Amino acid sequence: MGRRLFKELERVYGFDEVAIVPGQVTINPELTSTKMTIGDRSFEIPVLASAMDGAVSPHFASLMYEMGGLGVLNAEGLYTRYEDPYSVLEEIVSTPQEDVTQFLQKVYSEPIREELIGQRVQEIRASGATCAVSFTPQNTKRMSPMAVEAGADIVFVQSTVTTARHMSRSYRGLVFSELVKALKVPVVVGNCVTYDVATELMETGIDGVLVGVGPGAACTTREVVGVGVPQVSATLECAAAREDYFRRTGRYVNIITDGGFRTGGDICKAIVSGADAVMLGTPFAQADEAPGHGFNWGMANPHPELPRGTRIKVGTKGSLKQILYGPTSRTDGTQNFMGALRVAMGMCGAYTIRDLHKAEMVIAPAIKTEGKYFQFAGGG
Amino acid sequence: MGRRLFKELERVYGFDEVAIVPGQVTINPELTSTKMTIGDRSFEIPVLASAMDGAVSPHFASLMYEMGGLGVLNAEGLYTRYEDPYSVLEEIVSTPQEDVTQFLQKVYSEPIREELIGQRVQEIRASGATCAVSFTPQNTKRMSPMAVEAGADIVFVQSTVTTARHMSRSYRGLVFSELVKALKVPVVVGNCVTYDVATELMETGIDGVLVGVGPGAACTTREVVGVGVPQVSATLECAAAREDYFRRTGRYVNIITDGGFRTGGDICKAIVSGADAVMLGTPFAQADEAPGHGFNWGMANPHPELPRGTRIKVGTKGSLKQILYGPTSRTDGTQNFMGALRVAMGMCGAYTIRDLHKAEMVIAPAIKTEGKYFQFAGGG
Amino acid sequence: MGRRLFKELERVYGFDEVAIVPGQVTINPELTSTKMTIGDRSFEIPVLASAMDGAVSPHFASLMYEMGGLGVLNAEGLYTRYEDPYSVLEEIVSTPQEDVTQFLQKVYSEPIREELIGQRVQEIRASGATCAVSFTPQNTKRMSPMAVEAGADIVFVQSTVTTARHMSRSYRGLVFSELVKALKVPVVVGNCVTYDVATELMETGIDGVLVGVGPGAACTTREVVGVGVPQVSATLECAAAREDYFRRTGRYVNIITDGGFRTGGDICKAIVSGADAVMLGTPFAQADEAPGHGFNWGMANPHPELPRGTRIKVGTKGSLKQILYGPTSRTDGTQNFMGALRVAMGMCGAYTIRDLHKAEMVIAPAIKTEGKYFQFAGGG
Amino acid sequence: MGRRLFKELERVYGFDEVAIVPGQVTINPELTSTKMTIGDRSFEIPVLASAMDGAVSPHFASLMYEMGGLGVLNAEGLYTRYEDPYSVLEEIVSTPQEDVTQFLQKVYSEPIREELIGQRVQEIRASGATCAVSFTPQNTKRMSPMAVEAGADIVFVQSTVTTARHMSRSYRGLVFSELVKALKVPVVVGNCVTYDVATELMETGIDGVLVGVGPGAACTTREVVGVGVPQVSATLECAAAREDYFRRTGRYVNIITDGGFRTGGDICKAIVSGADAVMLGTPFAQADEAPGHGFNWGMANPHPELPRGTRIKVGTKGSLKQILYGPTSRTDGTQNFMGALRVAMGMCGAYTIRDLHKAEMVIAPAIKTEGKYFQFAGGG
Repeated sequence: MGRRLFKELERVYGFDEVAIVPGQVTINPELTSTKMTIGDRSFEIPVLASAMDGAVSPHFASLMYEMGGLGVLNAEGLYTRYEDPYSVLEEIVSTPQEDVTQFLQKVYSEPIREELIGQRVQEIRASGATCAVSFTPQNTKRMSPMAVEAGADIVFVQSTVTTARHMSRSYRGLVFSELVKALKVPVVVGNCVTYDVATELMETGIDGVLVGVGPGAACTTREVVGVGVPQVSATLECAAAREDYFRRTGRYVNIITDGGFRTGGDICKAIVSGADAVMLGTPFAQADEAPGHGFNWGMANPHPELPRGTRIKVGTKGSLKQILYGPTSRTDGTQNFMGALRVAMGMCGAYTIRDLHKAEMVIAPAIKTEGKYFQFAGGG
Repeated sequence: MGRRLFKELERVYGFDEVAIVPGQVTINPELTSTKMTIGDRSFEIPVLASAMDGAVSPHFASLMYEMGGLGVLNAEGLYTRYEDPYSVLEEIVSTPQEDVTQFLQKVYSEPIREELIGQRVQEIRASGATCAVSFTPQNTKRMSPMAVEAGADIVFVQSTVTTARHMSRSYRGLVFSELVKALKVPVVVGNCVTYDVATELMETGIDGVLVGVGPGAACTTREVVGVGVPQVSATLECAAAREDYFRRTGRYVNIITDGGFRTGGDICKAIVSGADAVMLGTPFAQADEAPGHGFNWGMANPHPELPRGTRIKVGTKGSLKQILYGPTSRTDGTQNFMGALRVAMGMCGAYTIRDLHKAEMVIAPAIKTEGKYFQFAGGG
Repeated sequence: MGRRLFKELERVYGFDEVAIVPGQVTINPELTSTKMTIGDRSFEIPVLASAMDGAVSPHFASLMYEMGGLGVLNAEGLYTRYEDPYSVLEEIVSTPQEDVTQFLQKVYSEPIREELIGQRVQEIRASGATCAVSFTPQNTKRMSPMAVEAGADIVFVQSTVTTARHMSRSYRGLVFSELVKALKVPVVVGNCVTYDVATELMETGIDGVLVGVGPGAACTTREVVGVGVPQVSATLECAAAREDYFRRTGRYVNIITDGGFRTGGDICKAIVSGADAVMLGTPFAQADEAPGHGFNWGMANPHPELPRGTRIKVGTKGSLKQILYGPTSRTDGTQNFMGALRVAMGMCGAYTIRDLHKAEMVIAPAIKTEGKYFQFAGGG
Repeated sequence: MGRRLFKELERVYGFDEVAIVPGQVTINPELTSTKMTIGDRSFEIPVLASAMDGAVSPHFASLMYEMGGLGVLNAEGLYTRYEDPYSVLEEIVSTPQEDVTQFLQKVYSEPIREELIGQRVQEIRASGATCAVSFTPQNTKRMSPMAVEAGADIVFVQSTVTTARHMSRSYRGLVFSELVKALKVPVVVGNCVTYDVATELMETGIDGVLVGVGPGAACTTREVVGVGVPQVSATLECAAAREDYFRRTGRYVNIITDGGFRTGGDICKAIVSGADAVMLGTPFAQADEAPGHGFNWGMANPHPELPRGTRIKVGTKGSLKQILYGPTSRTDGTQNFMGALRVAMGMCGAYTIRDLHKAEMVIAPAIKTEGKYFQFAGGG
């Protein structure tokens, strides 16, 4: 006798709504390994910095590599539009809030200078770092070979929503299987949130899938356009696609959860949801070394017709090293991400990231209570 | 061993509790069409402006048509009670908040002057616009023919809750099948929220069903009377009725979701829920050209015995054109509704409104978090 | 593979979490009847005022009857402990908040003067009103006959939690079947919240069951003791017991939902949940004529060892008549309760309270949104 | 056609999300017994004070015993690191908030002086109290025999997450079955939250299991590391393990819910969830007699690499006696915990703690409403 409905809706979940359950066995954190690989490249930690102009400059990308992770450079941002992007960054930072969306719209209407792509890649490579650059689907075919030729090790292809089959009047849809063959370096593509799209993308031969569309309720894509899936459910679904694809083909493709992270706890939850790595923007824009000087903005903000989001003062919270490894006297989960990850791995008895995939998770919404709780924690 | 209950309750959902899932294929927004038809009339966009005195004047109705949509004139409001409604509007606007409910009660106790109905219709028609007027059920039989005779193209019959069978002591219940035959123009009726009522209404031969009773929790009908169904579930149910009726009869009747919209995202969600069009009041009352000068009020507010709601200062947020089409530097989803709709259609691979009906939607409550999320969105 | 648990928990609901669905047929509000009976007494409206000293004095009880409802006098409160309760009321009102719990503890430690019970009953009867008085279980056997002898028409027996079988060292458990036979007037007993207790109570021969234990989350019984069931679920369960008992025995026993009401919408929801009547405290303590002069407190507050709740400044919001029948220019649902009830009955096509029991209700949590919604409501 | 997911998530619940249902029979509170035993030791009330330096000093432990409960001394805190811990406590209290985490890190880096362990045990025993001390797993094997030799009656082994099988490079995992045989006093171990871990721990022969990992959403373990299970569900699961183990072996092992309590209502809910006893920190740190002078902090706060939580000003709310037994004029549930427990037992018809395990509980989230509710409660 239930209500007759046009379609069924399923409940999905975000970071704030879940919690990890400790394991049957515990291990000491120093016994854990957080290693990750993308294609033939390996990294000490499963952490990427997002291709956002306020977070990753060529210098910051080098620093991320030094710290064990990977910083991805936006190859269509300020660094490839301006010979001297740093003075533009300073202008962005000093523009009053009420004028900033318009100013960003103007600054990003400057054309991409193709010679700067190779130049930025070389800057990163010069430091000895593995170099990753990010393109949008419409420019990938033409521009990504320039980056690879200059030495780029990994190519990211990213738009808000990416599928293996995009229809466009102005450019012929990018064929990822051809791209993979042409470039001969690992290719990571996103963003997507569903089993079917993740599967189709993996079938093109790419090496990593970025997961995340409008993950937060505050996210502008979800607010403005109504589209989005919270990260825990999106990751659970794409990780299921990876497992099935792996069983079927024997090829293991990384699932990288991108965006919506606030604390070390969120990173742990993404991995328990099935992520092989995580990609963060704002937490790295808050590093002392970030090019945004305590500000951050997305590429959807300067969109000429449908700007989403805005420049936000995120502040600076400490050095990149502190953010990733501590030590810290902050107790809110926004520093020492890797310490948190190792403690969680210990509590779940996980020696590796792949082991942590087996941990149990429950739905436990973060209801705010006035009272605080103090927990005795001697053995962790 | 469960609890024994007097009746079962099912969970229903509103805009803030759902999110749209991107599709398996994506398309470029410029490939999409947002066309809609009501009876034999067609429109560029599936958007109606509500028959509220603070939103739609004869002039505003003409403007809406120019923009591709349809503004519905309240044929029982100030425009048909006063020769010069504009000075009354100004008085309403300048009345202090504490006296305004009483003032509205007085102003709306003035009788409807029937000769003004035709006059207002002609004002709208004179601009070349398709003209739609709205009546309450008790006055429809007597007054709607006057409007049609003067040139009205579409007649709306609206009350808070409308069924095909209303019992009254003071007037004989309106028989919609007779009305449809008599008027010979498309008739749109509402509001309703259930499968059964929508079905019965469609069976009378009408051309559109308005969906929405007390959709928001803040809605006064729900607060004061306890009656209401959030818009996503109401639309899902009435759209199921449309599909079943269409399968059975071959006649396609529009489902128009009316009320509760705040952002472009909400409009997209209503259509994914099955709406063929949406009807908005407050967002249009916020247009520079709206007759309410930044104020809005409902017809339930001046109710002599059970006033609900009140006059609210909604502010003016931009021109009607900006609200519908941008460009905008606002990033909160309250401008460029059609841009948002096209982007959502692109993300879901929908060429038409009917295609967007096939998109998937999930339950993902909008939990407020302090942290903001920045998303890279180059390709959208 | 689910979690193994010590016991299963079911989800229950309160007023703020549900909404009424309009019916298949609508009727004009003036066609509805709100009549209610308790035993052989009948009333124009299904509304009782709670036996709280700040709400119901003998004078207020008379006034409630005049208005069509029933005010219940607390026969163990100030009116039977003090010859002149009105000066004590004034002292309570003028005591500073920080001292008031202690002051109430002192004031209520004064013994009940049995001769005052009959005197208060006679005051109420002298006005021509039906007289109802309330006792706690431990005093009922001794004191209620005095009230009946003096002319009381209905006896209420109330404690926070009442069952048909209470174990005590200090007094022999009250046997309701004996009480009913002895008193020869209708007896109403509460409070309870479950099918089984409501059934056992009805089987003793009583005429009404009061439903409600710690209904609000803010309720002190629930806060302090952890015990409570929200009113919608409690009513749904006790109403199911009434239906089953009625089918089995042919005797119809009233279910009266007691407490937790804020608006007219809440009253409508209680009745749709299966209540035959509702009992309100605070909304009547807010009447101009209430003895508490804008303050209210419960009998659990002066509890000598475990005080719960406190004196609260509830303010005065209008005359009793306005609260029940309007007219009003308040639009928040706190006035014209009966107007709201009749409008809801009209929207659900219910001619009688018993008809309104058949309306549908859904779970639709009251999520606060910033935007307001204006609804066109001409026909209601 | 549901979404394909990497793993399934179950919903879990905390104190704020549930409520106790009154029973079929009620009893007077003075007929109830709150007795509890741990091994061969028995106590008047099922309440333990947590091994936190701001809550339990040797003197406070004696006081807790006097009041009928058990205070557990942290044998690795200030009392065993400093000859004069009281001056250190005063320094902690007077350190400005911004420096306190660093100061605590320094203070707790002082080594444990083993001779002080016996000395503190003797202080407690000298008062005639049953003496309980707490160790972390890594120090238990070496240090706990010293405590037992000095007269300790019960040994607690506690870390944030404890399992029967812990892997470490630096020390050989503690074998609880050997410990139990070696010590010859009751051993209580924790914390855990799942059926399987609780079962494995009971199978080692221990006498009590502590339940609770990151129970509150505000809890720092859950925020920083993402790990935690709300207390109601954790207790329901571990109590199921106790029942199954008892059925299988005939040995009854106490389940002690540890942490996350704010009110007397929370204590009642933990017991209805299956707890045999409860362990509280902050509510006792708020006692006039607590060593923290109105401040409290956890052992995870001074963690050298991953500090969680911080020193919090909890204030002093009354004497330990008032907190446990009243009388009180506070009405917020933070005093007279045992009065609240007895009232709840009365409402559920429970003569003993074991009877209260049989009470029914429902899911009823604590939605904040503006309106307050006053309840008549004469008979409770």
